[in-house]
Amino acid sequence: MSVVQVLLAIELVGTFAFAVSGALLAARKGFDIVGSLLLASLAGLGGGVLRDVILAQGVPNAFAVPMYLIPVAVATLAVFFRLIRQDRLRWTLLAFDAVGLAMFCVMGASIAHAAGLNPVATMLLGVTTAVGGGAMRDVAANEIPQIFTPHGVYAAPAFLGAAATTATLELDVFNGFWAVGISLVVIAIRMVALKRGWRVPLAVWR
Amino acid sequence: MSVVQVLLAIELVGTFAFAVSGALLAARKGFDIVGSLLLASLAGLGGGVLRDVILAQGVPNAFAVPMYLIPVAVATLAVFFRLIRQDRLRWTLLAFDAVGLAMFCVMGASIAHAAGLNPVATMLLGVTTAVGGGAMRDVAANEIPQIFTPHGVYAAPAFLGAAATTATLELDVFNGFWAVGISLVVIAIRMVALKRGWRVPLAVWR
Amino acid sequence: MSVVQVLLAIELVGTFAFAVSGALLAARKGFDIVGSLLLASLAGLGGGVLRDVILAQGVPNAFAVPMYLIPVAVATLAVFFRLIRQDRLRWTLLAFDAVGLAMFCVMGASIAHAAGLNPVATMLLGVTTAVGGGAMRDVAANEIPQIFTPHGVYAAPAFLGAAATTATLELDVFNGFWAVGISLVVIAIRMVALKRGWRVPLAVWR
Repeated sequence: MSVVQVLLAIELVGTFAFAVSGALLAARKGFDIVGSLLLASLAGLGGGVLRDVILAQGVPNAFAVPMYLIPVAVATLAVFFRLIRQDRLRWTLLAFDAVGLAMFCVMGASIAHAAGLNPVATMLLGVTTAVGGGAMRDVAANEIPQIFTPHGVYAAPAFLGAAATTATLELDVFNGFWAVGISLVVIAIRMVALKRGWRVPLAVWR
Repeated sequence: MSVVQVLLAIELVGTFAFAVSGALLAARKGFDIVGSLLLASLAGLGGGVLRDVILAQGVPNAFAVPMYLIPVAVATLAVFFRLIRQDRLRWTLLAFDAVGLAMFCVMGASIAHAAGLNPVATMLLGVTTAVGGGAMRDVAANEIPQIFTPHGVYAAPAFLGAAATTATLELDVFNGFWAVGISLVVIAIRMVALKRGWRVPLAVWR
Repeated sequence: MSVVQVLLAIELVGTFAFAVSGALLAARKGFDIVGSLLLASLAGLGGGVLRDVILAQGVPNAFAVPMYLIPVAVATLAVFFRLIRQDRLRWTLLAFDAVGLAMFCVMGASIAHAAGLNPVATMLLGVTTAVGGGAMRDVAANEIPQIFTPHGVYAAPAFLGAAATTATLELDVFNGFWAVGISLVVIAIRMVALKRGWRVPLAVWR
């Protein structure tokens, strides 16, 4: 497998993880199977579509490359046939989601850098890619987005991962090892924060 | 009238139907007339704007062609002056909405195909065009989108219509007759499903 | 200072005002500091990003020009350290917000005109720029958008300001004096309407 194939494979895993979160939310809200498919698409593909629309470089990947739909369809069916259930696998799913978050912030920043954006915009677009799909999932389902609420550390490691990716890209040292290393750090922060119940300070200091 | 004029005329009817649904929702939520105009715009034009932004081919039609605003303004005024009321004309409005749904999925897929998208993306963009405006209308009004809820068959016929349009386009047999035929089938499925109370399975199989 | 610098300075003030409204809403909803930063970004930069995506002229300003992030960060920190509080400065903030509204509808219409849009689209995009950020802020926080509700006159002066800007641009008489004059009228209408409790008619005439 080439590097591109590895990256595509990992991105498809991230899309699957986010799509599962969408289909599970649809199940919890009592939506029908079509709503589940649409919410899984929004969660899994929304961040990337947002990134590509902002980069203004033609049709978003999620539409141009049909393969992206496979993890979305698999996720929807896995929830439909109860292969994945809310009440089990909680940590497995959170780990999947953390993988998605990590991969999307690294890939988002890489793609933004390749498109010629400045460092600040590169970092921002990495974060947007990582948290955009989840935010759209929650907004569409009429819930307060998880990224806003003080129940865990979610967007902060995405900021960190996007910043580290941008820094290594600007220093011209970014490569597959950095991509994997940064991703692992993002995943570790997210998972340790979950286990230990870490929280980010509130919007107003006390 | 040329074919283009016929298509434009039918699209304006679809825009009107969706815009009415936006203005009626604004009335039900107690919004003011400006909010009604904005919600009618979102419902009537949102799906097409989303389609055009994803296709990345310049300024969306709804902004480039001022004529699209006429059905939106007429719908808002018709609701304001009680010419259209929630408690009457229910079936007329549902029929209008079904016409909009049908026309938008066929036109959305046609425009996506003309832009050179692959068959899967063509179908997806047809569905996005058909259901996007209604979804944005509901999200903006802080309601759970109708397309997610199991109270009827809505997105499914749009999927079918977009798939049929894409198939006939790929087979190079699509023409005005197919456009009308597919639209009539979509409308029929939507209306029969409403009359008979058909439902799509839930997100989790029982 | 050149005209461009003056315009940029005033736009940054408008961004700051809208960003404060986002951070204050985050505080009221109990979001964390990262959520506050994201909501402030959406409120302060969302309208301009929407405008630039619709104009389809490359990467939106908010991403291409890092300076736009400064007022967003300052607003988030000012709310975090209680330098700006909901319970004080109410009229100061409303005045800031009115300045943002006025500047954004004038600048939005100017940019749309420079991009070659027709007069109707120019006016529409001015309104979209002015009210888009606030609408996205409220939708993301799971609130009914303020622009829809009959608690004041908000979108109406933006419509007026965008229309006046478009008219003077079409007549080829628009300049810095018109920009300032139109802005002052928009601000005056907004503030007088607030003081006097003016309301726009509801979506259905009584």
